[in-house]
Amino acid sequence: MNTSPEQPKRKRPTGRRVGDSGTRDAVLDAARDLFAEQGYDKASMRAIASQAGVDPALIRHFFGDKEHLFAETMAARTAIPERMGAAIAGPPEGLGRRATDAYLRLWEDPDTRSILLGLVRSAMTSEYGVQLLVETMAGRMPVDTPMPDVRNPKARSLGLAASHLFGVAVARHVLRLPVIADMPHDDLVDSLAPVIQRYLAGAATE
Amino acid sequence: MNTSPEQPKRKRPTGRRVGDSGTRDAVLDAARDLFAEQGYDKASMRAIASQAGVDPALIRHFFGDKEHLFAETMAARTAIPERMGAAIAGPPEGLGRRATDAYLRLWEDPDTRSILLGLVRSAMTSEYGVQLLVETMAGRMPVDTPMPDVRNPKARSLGLAASHLFGVAVARHVLRLPVIADMPHDDLVDSLAPVIQRYLAGAATE
Repeated sequence: MNTSPEQPKRKRPTGRRVGDSGTRDAVLDAARDLFAEQGYDKASMRAIASQAGVDPALIRHFFGDKEHLFAETMAARTAIPERMGAAIAGPPEGLGRRATDAYLRLWEDPDTRSILLGLVRSAMTSEYGVQLLVETMAGRMPVDTPMPDVRNPKARSLGLAASHLFGVAVARHVLRLPVIADMPHDDLVDSLAPVIQRYLAGAATE
Repeated sequence: MNTSPEQPKRKRPTGRRVGDSGTRDAVLDAARDLFAEQGYDKASMRAIASQAGVDPALIRHFFGDKEHLFAETMAARTAIPERMGAAIAGPPEGLGRRATDAYLRLWEDPDTRSILLGLVRSAMTSEYGVQLLVETMAGRMPVDTPMPDVRNPKARSLGLAASHLFGVAVARHVLRLPVIADMPHDDLVDSLAPVIQRYLAGAATE
């Protein structure tokens, strides 16, 4: 937890209400930083409140429990759903390349990477972390689709494409497997795009 | 740590030397169980010694440190390298299907799955866990190849195939993403084999 000297760590709650937009911003910023640094499980509501300079009870009153604060932080402080949504929009023939490029960039951007790393670490050790990761990457897409039928070949093809991109991202940024970690972004997109296109085209037409 | 009533938990070291094959087996069995249940980081040498009924100093004397005990346990108690090696041997045209089938079976077999789960969890939280996972899955293949040049397209294709299979295994067995977790083994092999074949053929011919 890096606290700059200008911002004393344990300053007393200021009495600002969390409904004030400045305070709301401070809570979301603190939550983003601590979820990224410590992962979902270890980042405590108390530590987030302390870093934001508000009372923990106020956070709970306005955001609800930690799960809801996390969901709100993802929505308000990472543009993950919008960025993936923008990549998915557009002509179908370039979809594999656009989705691959956008997904890899989420992991290369230091702000979103730290959030994704925290999510993946939480997902490995807690059931709820899994749900958060899946919702962040899939369930919060702008297009509001009903839960897919798991026997549906389209849903399966989407799942395989997502699993492939996820495996490459983990190999590149968590495991740091040299042969994947050292590939330039454009080479990686060139290698993956035809495979992802094939899965996504299958998902669109089957 | 499930200790059956027949096997009291903290029985005194019996004085058997760890060089005795029975004692060596007991240490490797205990290590396999605890690494699988608790992951690499949490499974302590003391707990392994206690479960095996030997003195921790004896384990250290004969196996060395925890890293070496782990490597020895993987080699002696999981047939992962042999099973992947057997799948890789054979005619090149069926390689993608054989490798996919063998890899997915490692995760479906309860004995190897528990070891792989422990490895993946360790890899997410420790640098050394990463090294163990990579070595177990890749570096300990029977064919003794030099470390691949990361700019080599063959090595990259192998890395992409491995990342794809890894991502699917994590989605299926760790994240339990329904659309992947509920796919029958044969359907999953049918979907993945052509993609893995394409990567591996690229690795063989480029």
